[in-house]
Amino acid sequence: MLIVAENINIRNTKIGTSMRERNSEPIIELAKSLKDAGANYLDINIGPGTKGGPELIKWLVTSIQEKVDIPLCLDTKNIEAMKAGLEVHKGRAIINSTDGSEEQMNKVMPLAKEFNAAIIGLTLDESGIPRDENERFQIAFNIMTKATEYGISPEDLYIDPIILPVSGMQDQVNYAIESIKMFSQLSDPPPKTIVGLSNISQSSPPELRSLLNRTLLIMLACNGLSAAIADSLDKELMTVLKTYDILTNKVLYAHSYLD
Amino acid sequence: MLIVAENINIRNTKIGTSMRERNSEPIIELAKSLKDAGANYLDINIGPGTKGGPELIKWLVTSIQEKVDIPLCLDTKNIEAMKAGLEVHKGRAIINSTDGSEEQMNKVMPLAKEFNAAIIGLTLDESGIPRDENERFQIAFNIMTKATEYGISPEDLYIDPIILPVSGMQDQVNYAIESIKMFSQLSDPPPKTIVGLSNISQSSPPELRSLLNRTLLIMLACNGLSAAIADSLDKELMTVLKTYDILTNKVLYAHSYLD
Repeated sequence: MLIVAENINIRNTKIGTSMRERNSEPIIELAKSLKDAGANYLDINIGPGTKGGPELIKWLVTSIQEKVDIPLCLDTKNIEAMKAGLEVHKGRAIINSTDGSEEQMNKVMPLAKEFNAAIIGLTLDESGIPRDENERFQIAFNIMTKATEYGISPEDLYIDPIILPVSGMQDQVNYAIESIKMFSQLSDPPPKTIVGLSNISQSSPPELRSLLNRTLLIMLACNGLSAAIADSLDKELMTVLKTYDILTNKVLYAHSYLD
Repeated sequence: MLIVAENINIRNTKIGTSMRERNSEPIIELAKSLKDAGANYLDINIGPGTKGGPELIKWLVTSIQEKVDIPLCLDTKNIEAMKAGLEVHKGRAIINSTDGSEEQMNKVMPLAKEFNAAIIGLTLDESGIPRDENERFQIAFNIMTKATEYGISPEDLYIDPIILPVSGMQDQVNYAIESIKMFSQLSDPPPKTIVGLSNISQSSPPELRSLLNRTLLIMLACNGLSAAIADSLDKELMTVLKTYDILTNKVLYAHSYLD
């Protein structure tokens, strides 16, 4: 399971301030600790990025990659900023994201092709959030078809079935899980899959969040999930994931496997 | 998921002493706390029960059921003791267990029919522990066939794929999980499934045991497991299971769902 750390986010007060002040030290420190905790990618969320987005993301990508050897998942709705970030990124970036609307796909997918980046496709479109697993599958199919048109291979496409908060939209959890199984039928090889894991526990009490997140992660892993955008500083989450890798024989068991 | 508490076991020093001294108080106290912690059944393990097995199990079953309203899973290799226990048991007992050998099945299955009890069928036979999921399926098929001969319905049969310690037999975990999926193809309706969950962490360090147990439980639940013999006093285990029930929409979410 690929873990994309969710933590470098402009909405985080400390990190947001560091971004605005171009103070790289706290961000680099966080990036290092995320990598040490087991993250494979770092999500770099600059928000809408309407004001100075391209310049901010360039500074962020170069500052981080100068000091930490890790690929990034560029997270902005600003297409100019996305392009600017990809131009300076070293290695294989992930574009976060396009949805399934024609307009967005035609804007974002050419960047994936041009910069040889992977891309996240959210199963959302003009009609909003899908109501069940079938609507998710239909949008995933559209994304897949469009990606093929742009010459993006299924292995570079991460379909996101949209995890919604269990508090309020409880029946949607099953639909999201079910759709992950269905996506494996889209092509051979199938597209990859990804979720924004912490969405599940949005608006749940703080003491429940890690428990909900980590239980769902195992359930998704059992259903074939390829990647998760998650809090890699959550020790219990990473511990459960290591245990999953042991129990599925992906990593050799040793009494010290958590160390 | 049906939880059969594993804790009333003659190998437990305190409980073993209470059994031998016919001191029911500590056993009843434990039984109550197991039920309060969420157990649906209590496994009553009297070991081989070669000396005075029938009398011991009669005393145990009546002592517990006099004070605690819960059905029991009678766990002994002594067929006379099993029969004696079933004679005094109130409600629907589970027989723990038969393996897939002709001799054992012909001894134990008639008791299930006679006393209208459910029965656990271990996927073990004369040739020992199965090597992979296919051998497990073959033995399960034999058990299923024999149960049908004895007029035992698939819903009263719990097939146990034999969980082996991850420390030492790591590759067997996948086989056991895979076989649970396969058992659902045995009949329509399919037989139920059960595991001895704590086996997975036998000979792992104490600080890893609950983590291994609870991670495996979610993985098995995702693959359709019906029941687990487990430590219902393990709070983290029961908490993860409640969370699974929430995420699969079996229980309505409330911020207080753990209370």
